[in-house]
Amino acid sequence: MAQDLVIGIDVGGQTAKCGVVDARGNIIAQTVISSENTTNADEFVAALAEALTRIIAESHAEGRIRGIGVGIPNGNFYTGVVENAVNLMWAKSGNIPFAKMLQEQMNGIPVSLTNDANAAAMGEMTYGAARGMKNFIMITLGTGVGSGIVINGEVVYGHDGFAGELGHTCAVRHNGRACNCGKTGCLETYASATGVARTAREWLEMSDEPSPLRSLDVIKSKNVYEAAKEGDKLSLRVFEYTGRILGEKFADFIEFSSPEAIVLFGGLARAREFLEKPILDAMNENVIPLWRNKVQLVFSSLKESDAAILGASALAWEL
Amino acid sequence: MAQDLVIGIDVGGQTAKCGVVDARGNIIAQTVISSENTTNADEFVAALAEALTRIIAESHAEGRIRGIGVGIPNGNFYTGVVENAVNLMWAKSGNIPFAKMLQEQMNGIPVSLTNDANAAAMGEMTYGAARGMKNFIMITLGTGVGSGIVINGEVVYGHDGFAGELGHTCAVRHNGRACNCGKTGCLETYASATGVARTAREWLEMSDEPSPLRSLDVIKSKNVYEAAKEGDKLSLRVFEYTGRILGEKFADFIEFSSPEAIVLFGGLARAREFLEKPILDAMNENVIPLWRNKVQLVFSSLKESDAAILGASALAWEL
Repeated sequence: MAQDLVIGIDVGGQTAKCGVVDARGNIIAQTVISSENTTNADEFVAALAEALTRIIAESHAEGRIRGIGVGIPNGNFYTGVVENAVNLMWAKSGNIPFAKMLQEQMNGIPVSLTNDANAAAMGEMTYGAARGMKNFIMITLGTGVGSGIVINGEVVYGHDGFAGELGHTCAVRHNGRACNCGKTGCLETYASATGVARTAREWLEMSDEPSPLRSLDVIKSKNVYEAAKEGDKLSLRVFEYTGRILGEKFADFIEFSSPEAIVLFGGLARAREFLEKPILDAMNENVIPLWRNKVQLVFSSLKESDAAILGASALAWEL
Repeated sequence: MAQDLVIGIDVGGQTAKCGVVDARGNIIAQTVISSENTTNADEFVAALAEALTRIIAESHAEGRIRGIGVGIPNGNFYTGVVENAVNLMWAKSGNIPFAKMLQEQMNGIPVSLTNDANAAAMGEMTYGAARGMKNFIMITLGTGVGSGIVINGEVVYGHDGFAGELGHTCAVRHNGRACNCGKTGCLETYASATGVARTAREWLEMSDEPSPLRSLDVIKSKNVYEAAKEGDKLSLRVFEYTGRILGEKFADFIEFSSPEAIVLFGGLARAREFLEKPILDAMNENVIPLWRNKVQLVFSSLKESDAAILGASALAWEL
């Protein structure tokens, strides 16, 4: 009999990336569909099922798909429901029983879903930098800061299915930045790609320090990264500041679950050359002696284009 | 056949409390021995074994003891070793293979140990306020702040056996109080019994505000509690401040593991009348909307004199 396969789907605000994956983590067929063509959940699920059927046929995988794993914002692992996903056109309000809907469209192939950071943690554990680790914390540094926590080899879902919102722990207690969640001072307002750009803009306004960033109309984290590479002092200090804030919070996280490693992934993690040292310094200064210099800081080695599909597919192996 | 029994032992700096416990959580025999008579671990373990043998005989439990659970500072669940327990006369430095030593003295009855806060969490889950809960965080408010984290019905031990040091997460980032652990700003420097007394002393020094506390030579948390009960405004504000700091950190903890409840235990938790409201207010202000007003704050209902023994005994049922 041909080997078992799974499907991994990463649903974001603009696209849904889908792949057929084997047990070794090879993506043997893949496709991308738009996730902003419709505001109707039924239509989106139908388009998704059509795309899946196509890549299943392409890879001669009919009858061999063991399960479908989905990484999706606000996805509840326990219920398979997508709850109030403000970033998804077709799921902006209310609860969409997404797993059930997709399973019906796929002739009963079981579907499991969780949020994207949890899926990333599954991917690292199954195919990536955290292979063999039973206790680690995945931090995704993108537009926001996401997290997936693994304890005893299992992703932590908590009482309601939504555990692991470390991007909304408090980084700055007083006069902190306003966050989309409605609070102030959240880690993600400082330590995301958006946060890096915000820090640069604030600092440019506060001083007359020369910087190549001043010539830009819009400053994005990518610009700050490029300026830092060229030796711009202000941009280098932005990464130092960002790294220290991350490291300070990582110390708190270590005191919670005593992980073997913290694994970083996402666009901003590509700035490793500027972030690694301040993160490690601040983390080790702020953790109790028991864990000082003992917890690894690992940068994901998964190919970024594949990682989202692999992470979601890892969920399907558990089905 | 007579029912199975277990033994629970709570080892502290001054005493070791031991009890024979049945499956319903009844302590059918108990005793207390000194833990500061000797600096020699072998001697302490021998004295402990003698005491256990005595209460086993008293309760006619020979041959019925299924296991021995021990709550002990710096106890490593994975290895059964007590590591650098500075508060224990006979274990101040180095690693004491305590579980193995006691098991040998007790003719092979299996011994399991963990730190006192984890044992307290086991006790609450088995016999107390957290019965039926699979996800909760136990916070012990005593001389320090301890924690035991339960996820999916299991105490979290982490990579090395020492997870759950929430008393050493950062409550005050800049110019925080010096902590025994060597860091500054740790939660336990503010929110323990010691922290409450320290806040009161600092505030009395900083102002001329009248307070009955001024007439005392030494101010302890008990005095602050009594003054608050008499309506002393400064003491009431000390509890308000302490409660808010706890609530702010609880919000971070909720964002980590999404617990059903936070359970409070220990001497300072008796000040519920002054702590409950500021904790709840600060916790709900600082948590993301998803969990606002959804996580219970529970005060332990276990009889304090029994709770330590029960917590440790709960560990033995897992053996």
